[in-house]
Amino acid sequence: MTISKSPAAGNRPGCAQWLKTSNSISQQFLAFGGRPDVVSLAGGLPAAELYPLAAIQSATQRALERHGPAVLEYGAIEGFPALRRLIAARISAETGGHFTPENVLLTSGSMQGLDLIGKVLVDPGDLIVAQSPTYLGALDAWRPRAPLYSKLDWDLREPGFEDALARAKFVYSVPNYSNPTGVLVSQERRAALLDKVLTAGTWLVEDDPYRTIQLDGPPGHSILGHYVARHSRAYDGPVIYLGTVSKSLVPGLRVGWIVAEPGMIQALTLAKQATDLSSSMLTQAITLELLEQDFDSEHAKTIVPLYRERRDALCDEAALRLGEWFEWEVPVGGMFVWMRARNQAIDTDELYRFAVEEKVAFVPSSVFDFTGQDRFAMRVNFTRSSPEVITEGVRRLERAIATYVSSRAQLQGSNRPRDSLSPAAAAP
Amino acid sequence: MTISKSPAAGNRPGCAQWLKTSNSISQQFLAFGGRPDVVSLAGGLPAAELYPLAAIQSATQRALERHGPAVLEYGAIEGFPALRRLIAARISAETGGHFTPENVLLTSGSMQGLDLIGKVLVDPGDLIVAQSPTYLGALDAWRPRAPLYSKLDWDLREPGFEDALARAKFVYSVPNYSNPTGVLVSQERRAALLDKVLTAGTWLVEDDPYRTIQLDGPPGHSILGHYVARHSRAYDGPVIYLGTVSKSLVPGLRVGWIVAEPGMIQALTLAKQATDLSSSMLTQAITLELLEQDFDSEHAKTIVPLYRERRDALCDEAALRLGEWFEWEVPVGGMFVWMRARNQAIDTDELYRFAVEEKVAFVPSSVFDFTGQDRFAMRVNFTRSSPEVITEGVRRLERAIATYVSSRAQLQGSNRPRDSLSPAAAAP
Repeated sequence: MTISKSPAAGNRPGCAQWLKTSNSISQQFLAFGGRPDVVSLAGGLPAAELYPLAAIQSATQRALERHGPAVLEYGAIEGFPALRRLIAARISAETGGHFTPENVLLTSGSMQGLDLIGKVLVDPGDLIVAQSPTYLGALDAWRPRAPLYSKLDWDLREPGFEDALARAKFVYSVPNYSNPTGVLVSQERRAALLDKVLTAGTWLVEDDPYRTIQLDGPPGHSILGHYVARHSRAYDGPVIYLGTVSKSLVPGLRVGWIVAEPGMIQALTLAKQATDLSSSMLTQAITLELLEQDFDSEHAKTIVPLYRERRDALCDEAALRLGEWFEWEVPVGGMFVWMRARNQAIDTDELYRFAVEEKVAFVPSSVFDFTGQDRFAMRVNFTRSSPEVITEGVRRLERAIATYVSSRAQLQGSNRPRDSLSPAAAAP
Repeated sequence: MTISKSPAAGNRPGCAQWLKTSNSISQQFLAFGGRPDVVSLAGGLPAAELYPLAAIQSATQRALERHGPAVLEYGAIEGFPALRRLIAARISAETGGHFTPENVLLTSGSMQGLDLIGKVLVDPGDLIVAQSPTYLGALDAWRPRAPLYSKLDWDLREPGFEDALARAKFVYSVPNYSNPTGVLVSQERRAALLDKVLTAGTWLVEDDPYRTIQLDGPPGHSILGHYVARHSRAYDGPVIYLGTVSKSLVPGLRVGWIVAEPGMIQALTLAKQATDLSSSMLTQAITLELLEQDFDSEHAKTIVPLYRERRDALCDEAALRLGEWFEWEVPVGGMFVWMRARNQAIDTDELYRFAVEEKVAFVPSSVFDFTGQDRFAMRVNFTRSSPEVITEGVRRLERAIATYVSSRAQLQGSNRPRDSLSPAAAAP
C-alpha cells in the first residue's frame, strides 16, 4: 500500500527518510470513498446530511458581527482567547478540576494536536507506548519524528511493560470507543493505567474525539478525570488530553484542543508557532458561538439516535452475511465496528482488492498496526451512510469475500503461488 | 532570547532536541505588540482597520449557500478543488505556463507550506542554502528537521557556492520585497540563480507573500516565471513557489498555496495528511469567492497607497531622528525597512530592552540569522500602524537609542563590564 515517493524530477534531491515508509491510505480512501458508485465503509466521517448548516451559517454571521476584524487577524498562537476560556471551563466542569486558559491550546483539529505532540516530545528512536491497533492518523503524524513503538497492553501484565513505560516518551490511548476497534476501556483499566504512568513518570496522551457519540449511555470518566479526582490543585498532571468538534459538530471548521499542564502547553505553542503561526480565528470564533449555546449537546440528540440505527443496521446485516468469516463486538459508541477474521486464511489487504471490484470500501487492519503484521481484521464505519446504503455495502462485502475465498481455494488447489498474492497468504 | 523549554513537571520525559534551540520571538512580539500602550513596529501584520470585513461577510454567506455541507467536511487533503483550479489558472496567466490543479496544494498559510517542505525534503544534517538574513518563520519551520545552513550569496560568486548548491536539498529565497530586508532582487540575479540551481540539480523554494504590496511599480517575473519562459511544456521545474492571501486580503483565513511539479505536490500532500488531514474547506471556499472576483486586485488599490504613505512616514521620520546611528534603503514594496547600525557599537538585541522600556517594538536582526551572529540591524514594519503612530514609534526609538548609547558610554567610562551587557558589546 505504499506509493512511489520520489518527487525528484530529473536528479533533484530525494525526499526525507520517513516518506519512504509512509503511505497515502487516508488520501486513497477519501478519494475512492468520494465516488458516487462506491459504498464507503472506510472513512471516519460523520453523516454529511446531518451537518447543522443553518446553525453554522448563523453562528458565522454572529461571529463576524461580534468580533469584526479580530477574527481576520493572525491569532494568538494559543488560539482565540474566549474559546480557550470556554474549553477550560468545560473541562473543569467535566472533571471537577481547576483548569485555566493556560491549560489549553487550540489546534486545527486533533490531528494537528498529534503532530505537535510528536514535534515536542519525539526525537528519532524515542519510544511511544501505543494501544494496538493504533489510530492511523497518529502513526502518520509521528512518522516524520521516527519513533519506535511498544504495545500498550491494557491488562498491564505483559512482561517488560513497566520497563517500556519508564523508557517511553508517552503512552497513546483512545479510551472512548477507540479508533479502530470501537472499544470502550473500563474505568478500572483507566485507573490502573494512570497508576502505572504516574509510577513510571511519563506522559499519557488521551485522544478523545468520539466522546459525544454515546450510543449506549455515557462512557464515564476520562483518564484526565481520574487524575483530577486524586489531585485537587491546579492541573499539573501527566495527561495530555485531545478534544475536537470534528465528530460532535463538523470536521470542516478544523477546531480541536489540547488540554495539558501549562509547561507542556508552552512547548506545544512553540511547536505550533513553527507549524502554521496560528489557526483561523474565524473558525474558532464560529465554534465559540456554537459551544457557548451548548449546540453540540443539542446536536448530539439529533445524530446519536441515527448513528445507533446505523450501527444496528450494520451489525444486523453483517450477522446475517459475514458471520461465517468474521467476528466482532457491537460497539457502545463511536463510529466503527472492528471485524476480525475467524481464521488467518482471510488477509484483509488482499480482500480489499476484491472489495474495490465490488465497489465497497473498508480499512484493512495492517494500516493500524505499527508492525504492519496484522492483516486479519478490518475497520467498518457506520456513521457516514444511511442504513440502506450500509446494508448494500455489507452485501457487496459478502460478495467480495466469497470471490476472494473462492479464488484462494482455486489457487491452493492449483498449488501455484502467484505474484499477486503475498507469500504469507499463499502458504497453506 | 531563548525561553525555558522543559515542560517536564516532576521528572517526566523532556522535550525533543530542537526545542532547546527554539525561541518564542514571534509569540512574544504578538503578545507585546498587542498591548495598547505599545507602538509595535515589530510584526509583519497588515493594517487591521483596512481588512475588508463587509466583503468577507458577504463572501462567507455566498460560500455557505453555494457549497453547503461540502465546506463543512474534511476536504480533499490537496484543498478545495475549485480554488486549486483557480490558483492553477492564475499562475498560468501570470507566468504564461501550463499549470493544472495537480501543480497546486492549498495550505494553512504559507507558513504551513514551509513546514511541509521541511518535512518532505529535510533529514537531520541536510543542507539548506538560504538567503541571509532569513525569514524567521522559515527558520522556525525547519528547526524540528535539524538542517544545516549555507548562505545564499546573490552575487553567486562566493567560493564554494556551487558546491553548496550541489549538496543542498534546496535554496530558499524571498525575491520580492524580502523579509526581513525589503530587498527586491533584480531580474538578472533571479535568472542567474535559476541557472545555478538547474546546473546543480537542486530545488528552489520561492516564497512570495509580498507580491501584491507594490509600492513603486511591479516587481517583474518570479523565478518560477523565468523557468516557465524557458520551458513551455507542462510544469516539471525545480521551483517550489509559495503564495498566500495573508498580505493581500487577510491573514485570518489561513489560506496559502504551494505550486510545484506534480511529484513534489504528491509528497507534500502526504506530509499534509500527516499534519492536519486537511485545512478548512470553509475558509478556502470564502477565499475562492473573493479571488474569483479579483477582489485582491481591487483591495490592493485601497491598501497600497496607504502603505506607501506609511513607508514614507517611517523613512522620513527615521531620516530626521535615527540617521546618526542607522542606515537603510527605502524599500520599493513589502512591509519592512531594514535598518543597519552604522557601526557595531549598537547591538540590537540590547537595544531591544531599551525599546521595551520606551514602549516601542522592532525585531532585532539576530533572530533572522541562522548563525545568530548578526546583532547589528533591526526590522521595522510600516504597514500595521497609521503614519502618526509610526512617527511616534520612531520618536520612542530615538529615545531608546539615546538612552542605550549613553548607558554604554557610561559603562565604558567606568570600564567595568556588567552582567546585563554581553562581552561583545562591552568591548571597546
